[in-house]
Amino acid sequence: MGTFSVELGSVPRTYAVHVAQGSLDKLGEIAARSGIEAGKAALVADAKVAAIYADRVVGSLSASGFDATRIEVPPGEPSKSLATVSALYERFIEAGLDRQSAVFALGGGVIGDLAGFAAATYMRGVPLVQVPTTLLAQVDSCLGGKTGVNHPRAKNVIGAFYQPHLVVADVATLTTLAEREYREGLAEVIKYAATLDGAMVELLEGSADAIARRDGPLLEEIVERSLKLKAFVVERDERERGLRRLLNFGHTIGHALEAALGLGTLLHGEAVAIGMAAAAKLSRLHAGLSESDEARLLGLIRSAGLPAQLPQGWRSSQFVAALNLDKKRARNEVEFVLIPELGRAFTRRLTLEQIMAPLETG
Amino acid sequence: MGTFSVELGSVPRTYAVHVAQGSLDKLGEIAARSGIEAGKAALVADAKVAAIYADRVVGSLSASGFDATRIEVPPGEPSKSLATVSALYERFIEAGLDRQSAVFALGGGVIGDLAGFAAATYMRGVPLVQVPTTLLAQVDSCLGGKTGVNHPRAKNVIGAFYQPHLVVADVATLTTLAEREYREGLAEVIKYAATLDGAMVELLEGSADAIARRDGPLLEEIVERSLKLKAFVVERDERERGLRRLLNFGHTIGHALEAALGLGTLLHGEAVAIGMAAAAKLSRLHAGLSESDEARLLGLIRSAGLPAQLPQGWRSSQFVAALNLDKKRARNEVEFVLIPELGRAFTRRLTLEQIMAPLETG
Repeated sequence: MGTFSVELGSVPRTYAVHVAQGSLDKLGEIAARSGIEAGKAALVADAKVAAIYADRVVGSLSASGFDATRIEVPPGEPSKSLATVSALYERFIEAGLDRQSAVFALGGGVIGDLAGFAAATYMRGVPLVQVPTTLLAQVDSCLGGKTGVNHPRAKNVIGAFYQPHLVVADVATLTTLAEREYREGLAEVIKYAATLDGAMVELLEGSADAIARRDGPLLEEIVERSLKLKAFVVERDERERGLRRLLNFGHTIGHALEAALGLGTLLHGEAVAIGMAAAAKLSRLHAGLSESDEARLLGLIRSAGLPAQLPQGWRSSQFVAALNLDKKRARNEVEFVLIPELGRAFTRRLTLEQIMAPLETG
Repeated sequence: MGTFSVELGSVPRTYAVHVAQGSLDKLGEIAARSGIEAGKAALVADAKVAAIYADRVVGSLSASGFDATRIEVPPGEPSKSLATVSALYERFIEAGLDRQSAVFALGGGVIGDLAGFAAATYMRGVPLVQVPTTLLAQVDSCLGGKTGVNHPRAKNVIGAFYQPHLVVADVATLTTLAEREYREGLAEVIKYAATLDGAMVELLEGSADAIARRDGPLLEEIVERSLKLKAFVVERDERERGLRRLLNFGHTIGHALEAALGLGTLLHGEAVAIGMAAAAKLSRLHAGLSESDEARLLGLIRSAGLPAQLPQGWRSSQFVAALNLDKKRARNEVEFVLIPELGRAFTRRLTLEQIMAPLETG
């Protein structure tokens, strides 16, 4: 008998991130320059985004030698399903995609997660290019390698860590977003500032007008700065075992709200905004956050047009049900992200009682 | 506008491989010692294998604190489907498996590929323990991280590279294999010897009787030696971009045979055996393999009770169709593994004409 070990080489993986107004029209060129092999490819987009941008993108890809098959899926969260992934495999096979063929994911978070998972699992992984077109996707989900779809019984339970080979964010696409969709993306921007970048808090405070009118150069600055913060975190903790957990600021209660209220009531960013306001309150009690810092955070949230109040009648029983907590296992505790001041964060285990008592409302 | 890069840390990944008679009864202990967290787990097995071994395995796991849910799937290749993976997710959720819960894959290659893919994609990856019970799985598919399922239109087209956290091979399970299933595993053993290990050729030549009676200590030696050779290769080329391609010796024609004849006519190992015999003939023409080395390889194949002859009437048109070759792209060429002598191999692009002319049969 014998025992030995397999020592796999450690392969450093690096990918480029481009943030610019108008980069959609240079997508083919940027992809080719990044080492993505020209040839057969897939462009996966939701039908709404495809109607606005797919022709331009296919044109740009084609000019650089990519023969991209357009694949459209219905807009919205229901497309994040194993059935849609299966349909994508079918289209990839029909189009003759092989191991070198790239998948371009054009759209918001749903498309990035869905097409990313399909790319991760087609022929054991093909090159993936994230081309986010919403603010939420541009500042958050396009970078970091979380891909996946929902199971009828649980969100995001099917998935893989699969880093893109390239990210291209054209902030000009943000001008076509509906107001509410634009604003929800600001919640994640505020999250980076509140947890990791005190100077960015000041930048946001001083730019309310430019943010509201979606000023191009300012959006470039905000998106790039957010993505650099996320890259800093992901580079140090790809699998969310430590540092990356800080990016869950506002998300514990945010996710519980989304689950309790059901899809469509609150947008993700709106739920996160409420979650951040609640986390700020808890940070005053458990992390020494000053009242003035809490007020500044609430100011940012409100100035972005985002909600900051838990719904009337919100009770801890909903929270417990929504998080599907196993009382024995977690000993009734939740790992919670707190901020001792704007621009810094840490995690701490809080009991349900500690979380809920200050938050329960009429 | 800006461009920057995300530099992901390179994480060395190491896992242990245990080869021993009787290790099935120590599985829980070995897993716990390897750092797999005791607690909820899944044991995925085909119904045939489960009937023989599942009780013992669950007992061993339970003694070390694992609460393993037994999940049985029908034996055979049709279980390698997205539908079965979806059913596994459902069972994992029902059983309350979380990110730390291990999946134990007990069985042959189908179970390893299927349960491996489910583990790779449940909650973006949970610990996977390969517990192979066929010779083919013990010497080959349990190690190296290839997981996946079939699409109705193409084999293995859905999948991921996902390394197991632990491999435990109990050679005692090989004594319950049907004769034909045992013999097909020997094809992969012969492949390692022919391509990478001349001394192992001699070992096999001198052990025909012990191999035929499935001698325990000899099987330990053969399985461990085969896996060490595979580990050597995978450590240097996880993603099959160079060295790992040598392990396709006999597989180019083998896969074409499997595809042309349809499932169930030839076992995988039988097709590989015929493919190796054909590759030896081509190695004489294109790599200088001596007649005596070719004869020794054919002797090993026949002594293992494996076929070495292409089917009557085999023609290049079938080969072209089966490999789904795109004439324009591959310029009519195939990357082919040749051996200049027993124990050494290299790849060379051969034209279809070069491959088929010497092989076409009445």
